[in-house]
This record gives sequence, C-alpha cells and structure tokens, in this order.
Amino acid sequence: MDIFKFVTPEIIFGRGALQQIGFSARRLGARKVFLVSDPGVLDAGWVDKTITVLGDAGLEYTMWTGVTPNPKDSEVAEGRQLYEEKGCDAVIALGGGSAIDAAKAVAVLVSNQGDISSYEGVDKISHPLPPIIALPTTAGSGAEVSQFSIIVDVKRKLKMTIISKSLVPDIAIIDPEVLGTKSAELTANTGMDALTHAIESYTSVAATPLTDVQALNAIRLIANFLRKSVASQSDFQAKEAMAMASLQAGLAFSNAILGAVHAMTHQLGGLLDMPHGEANAILLPYVMRYNLIASMEKYAQVAEAFGESSLGVGKRAMAEKAISAVEEMARDIGIPRSLSQVGLTDEFIPKLSENAVKDACLVTNPRDMSRQEIERLFREAL
Amino acid sequence: MDIFKFVTPEIIFGRGALQQIGFSARRLGARKVFLVSDPGVLDAGWVDKTITVLGDAGLEYTMWTGVTPNPKDSEVAEGRQLYEEKGCDAVIALGGGSAIDAAKAVAVLVSNQGDISSYEGVDKISHPLPPIIALPTTAGSGAEVSQFSIIVDVKRKLKMTIISKSLVPDIAIIDPEVLGTKSAELTANTGMDALTHAIESYTSVAATPLTDVQALNAIRLIANFLRKSVASQSDFQAKEAMAMASLQAGLAFSNAILGAVHAMTHQLGGLLDMPHGEANAILLPYVMRYNLIASMEKYAQVAEAFGESSLGVGKRAMAEKAISAVEEMARDIGIPRSLSQVGLTDEFIPKLSENAVKDACLVTNPRDMSRQEIERLFREAL
Repeated sequence: MDIFKFVTPEIIFGRGALQQIGFSARRLGARKVFLVSDPGVLDAGWVDKTITVLGDAGLEYTMWTGVTPNPKDSEVAEGRQLYEEKGCDAVIALGGGSAIDAAKAVAVLVSNQGDISSYEGVDKISHPLPPIIALPTTAGSGAEVSQFSIIVDVKRKLKMTIISKSLVPDIAIIDPEVLGTKSAELTANTGMDALTHAIESYTSVAATPLTDVQALNAIRLIANFLRKSVASQSDFQAKEAMAMASLQAGLAFSNAILGAVHAMTHQLGGLLDMPHGEANAILLPYVMRYNLIASMEKYAQVAEAFGESSLGVGKRAMAEKAISAVEEMARDIGIPRSLSQVGLTDEFIPKLSENAVKDACLVTNPRDMSRQEIERLFREAL
Repeated sequence: MDIFKFVTPEIIFGRGALQQIGFSARRLGARKVFLVSDPGVLDAGWVDKTITVLGDAGLEYTMWTGVTPNPKDSEVAEGRQLYEEKGCDAVIALGGGSAIDAAKAVAVLVSNQGDISSYEGVDKISHPLPPIIALPTTAGSGAEVSQFSIIVDVKRKLKMTIISKSLVPDIAIIDPEVLGTKSAELTANTGMDALTHAIESYTSVAATPLTDVQALNAIRLIANFLRKSVASQSDFQAKEAMAMASLQAGLAFSNAILGAVHAMTHQLGGLLDMPHGEANAILLPYVMRYNLIASMEKYAQVAEAFGESSLGVGKRAMAEKAISAVEEMARDIGIPRSLSQVGLTDEFIPKLSENAVKDACLVTNPRDMSRQEIERLFREAL
C-alpha cells in the first residue's frame, strides 16, 4: 500500500440537524454568511427555515440563488462579486451538488482571486478558504464532504474538475428531513449518482481500507433503500438510509477519487447540460462491463452487498451479478435506458471523448481506457 | 437515530509516512515544536529519525520524554512548564497512547491554563489548542485520532477521562514501519487494546453506521493479523494491517465512545498502574458475557468478522462464538488469564468499583451496570 491521505469535514448527521447550522457557523467565526441555494430549495421552504436559524444565532446573511444544475463559471463569477460587495465572511451551501459546488468555487475566488479555470486540476489552490458549511438537500452528490468542485467552462463547453483538500467543507450537516420534498425522479437520479460514487471509488486504483468500508456500506444501503425512497416521499427510514449512503459514498470518492463513468459524464454535463445523476446511471453498467477484468474480486463484493447469493456461484459469475443488479435497480426506479433518450446524438461523441480522456477522474479508473474505447462505450450506451 | 457528530483528524497512512512529519508541521504553522516521546521510542531510534526530518523542514524543537505508562498529572505539569519555557508553538507526539495522551494534556494546559483535573469529563475545554500531530508507535491506543486523553490523578489514584473534540489531533501520521521495533508482548497487549476499542465501540449505545463500519473492519483485521504480528517483528503485512486496525478502532471509539471494560480498566491503571492493554484483554470476555443479552445481534456480527461460520448456528450460539473467539485469541498470544496474575488483590475491588461506576465510559455500555455488578465482574476475573 502506498502512502495515502484521508480527509473528512466534521459531520453532524440526523433528523433536525438543520437547526444546528447557526451555532455551527458561529463556531467557525462567521458574522455575515453568504447563503447559497437554488430556486427549488427556496420554494420548498428550506431557505426560510435556515434564515430563521441563522437569525436566532445572531448572524447576518446575503442570499444567492443564482445557481443552475451543472453550475457555470459565469454564475460563480457573479456569486463572487455579490459575496465581496456584501462583505461576507463565510459560506453556507444549502442545496444539491450544484449549489454546493458553486459555493465552494465562490469561496475559492474570494480568497485566491483570478478566474475559476485557474484552479482546474489537482491541488492548485494555495490560500485558505473562508469557512464553509454544506447542507445537502439531495442524497446523491456527496459534495458536502468531498474535495471536489465541478464547474462548467461555458466557453470551452466542458466541466472542469477542481480537486483540493481546501474544498472539503469545515462542517457537513446532513438532515434527512430535507430529502422529503424531492420528486421521485430527482430521488432516483441522485440516488444512482451516489451508487456510481460508491462503485467507482470502491474499484478506484486509489481505494484504501478506509474508503472501502464506506463505499461498501453505501452500496448495501442503496441496494436496500433506494427503491423505497423513490417510492415514497414520506418514508423517512429510507430517506435517512439514503442520506447516510450518499454521505458514505462521498467519504469514499472524496478520498479514493472516481473512474471512467464520471470522466465521461462530466462531458455530457458540460457540452449538453445533461442531468448528472441520470447520465451516470445510464453509463454505469457499460463501464462496469468494460472494467470487469480489472475488478472481478471487488465486483463480486458489490454483488454480495446487493444481497446476491454466492452459493455455488463462481467469482466471475458473481462479478456479473453486480452489473445485472445495477441494471435491475435502474429499471425499477425508471432511469432511461440510453443516452439518446436524454439528448445525445452521435455527432457529439468525438468531442466528448476527446475531453473525457483528459478528465482527472480517468486516472483512477481500474482499467486503462483510450479515446477509442471511450467513443465505443458512448456508442454502446447511445 | 439521534443527531450525532463524527470527527476525525486528517490522516496520512503508509510505510515511510514518518518522513512527512516536518512538512505537515510546517503546514500547520509550527516553528518550534514540542516533541513528546518516551524512553523506549527514543532507544529504538525513531526520535532521532524524526528530529532529522524536522530539521530538514527548518523547524526547531524541544524534546520531552518525561512520560511513563499511565501518564500522571504531575508529568503533564512538568511538560507544560518546559513547553512554556522554551516558547514552543505546536505539539508532536511520537509514542504509544501514554505519550500521545500526555502531549494532548500539555496542549490543553498551555492554551487553557489551570490544572488538568479541571478538564475531566466531557467538553470542558474552551480555548483552541496549539496544532497537534500524533504518530503512534504501537498499534493499539487509537489516541492519534481520538477525542480522549486519559491522565492519572496521582492524589486521587484514579484515571481521569477527558473527552473533547479539541483533543482530536490536527494530523495523524501512521507509519507501520515504526511497529517493527516493538516486543511480542507489547504487540499482543496493544493489539488486544485495539480489539477492545473495536468491540466496545461497536456495541456502544452511541454507535452509528459511520463508526460501525470502522469497528467491524478493525475486528476483521485483528482476527486475521494480530497473531502474525505477535509472531514476527518483520511481518510488515501484519504490521500494516494492525496499524490500520488500530486506526479504524480509534475512529470508531473516538466517535461512539467505549463501555464497561474501559470504565473498569481505567481504575486498574490509576490505582495499580497496571498495563492498559493487558487489563483490557483479561476483562473483555467477562464484560462481553455480561453484555450479551444487550448485544446479541452485534456479537453475532463480531463472530462473523472473526471468521466463525454461522451455517446452522442460531443467533445466540453465534453471539457466544464471539466471546470464545476473543478468549482463543488472548490464549494464542499469551495474555494472562486473570487479574490476580497482574497484581490485583480482593481488597482493592470496592474502591476500584466505586470509581468505575463514575467513569464516563460506563454511560455508553449497552447493558446497565451497578457498582455491585462491577464488583462481581472484577471478582470473576480475579
């Protein structure tokens, strides 16, 4: 085993944990927080609840909800301007992966200056960021604990992967009650995103025993609770399990990085603004089949985590069961079967593949993958 | 599930990780480090290696090795005086649980003043501590990641349990190579300490999914590698596995707290200066048998982690197998069978039990335990 690092934020988890957001921000020295959210979360009433809690803690705030799914560099620049105009001194992100990633990017700019594209890649951030608290409103992105921020470069039409320990929030507050206002479709997409995080980090070449235990338990929870969570907005046992699954998958991928699925879907988000979870869900079984010869042992464990029986089953057949279990899950919760259903056409594939081969997530994929292979996989999933 | 918190330091793990101690200290702003170690570690050459690395990073240091096993409040007071005299600004602990706990206590005093006994109990520390880096030289205490410091009150002849998030080191550096200079006896005792951490935190009433995965993997690793690590000073696969087991058990108990074994052995350390790991190892099966009716399900999982087969075995019988697996391990690696062999006589039991019932670790034991029950268990193990 090479030397590895493992970094996590302080975690506060449980129903009603949102109430601790004001006290937590004060503890980090905040006086005027930059509150990042999105219109959907605002409509569901969670922003108002948060503002009340911040007020009770004696904190001022500036709200910014100018974030779209697949957050753009231009939005981040606007957020930075507002943060500076209002003289904020801490960031609270209340939203899905997009709001949290945008909040992190604003924090980078206010403390490190310049353009967000300067920080693309690994370990490019030099100055400490203002305090960041993240409260996820979906069970999927894991951005509340990760050292990632994924921002679309509008001109280049691609997603920039920014990886740095500085991007790990100071405190992650996970409140499963917040998940109860999400639609079945969003629950399904984000849940499959979490599953992709868990499987890709579990089979990553940078996986360690510390990330493996998190990834495997996330898979177990998703196998048992994602269907239920999609089926009902009020099944809070399922919401709690999915919140934990997303958190554990986040701890895993933040420290073990990801693989080819993410290298490919970052491009679909960047070029075609495709929903991230859905794109992951469609591509995951194709990439798993390609990676199987590199990860047979671990796929057999994934199958076991899905509750598949290994009695009288050889290792290779067991590994195959992991792929069929993922496909069955996707079917059960209504994920589209092909990328063409969500807007991909053949003409984009060469450009997408050209960008995917440069994505930081491809480095940790367990099987080498050329641009030609990526093109072939995109076409298979079309 | 109630709202819970989960806190860890930044972790750097791997053979040769000691080399990163200088750079890590600089990153935390250190200029003159207070280097805490013990005579055994000094003799083995690890302090000299560390001093070289600190010098390469341009850091000054003051060395303090005035720590004994079961570190005393008087020693901590001496350490504090030296830290202040020399104008240090950060703490590096290089040793077993005693050196790391003493280093944490010095850090408390230099930033919070007063006497260490003022901080006994939970969350009594109010001011931030200087940066702390811990590098464990045994695979057992888990102190490198824990929010605990256990210090003997010499006058009262008991161990004070100090619990605070402030006691979590900023960076834990775990280098399995350092374990190669420990005797078989110390490897056995500290390994059983780690096993006790894993089992007590797994069955703690404050256990969460985040601590459970760590505890269970620690048990699995100890079941597979502790015997080998005791058998050979040069089996570095076993050292690496035990270093990981101790770390994971530490992550588990730091966040889920412990149970009756620790509540009882803290007193044996305080009153009779008994080696901590050995005392834990002797008491563990007795406490497990008492706790069985509260933790049957989890003990069955412990048995499975030990590699016991559940085929055709009922849950209760499987839970019993966890106890016999622990006893078998202790026998195999030469742990004494009774507390009388390590110096306990009946006359001390009432006083020990009186103190144990007030220990912070008893609160999270899965089965209620009166002073009378504690006396009975001490006598059983005599």
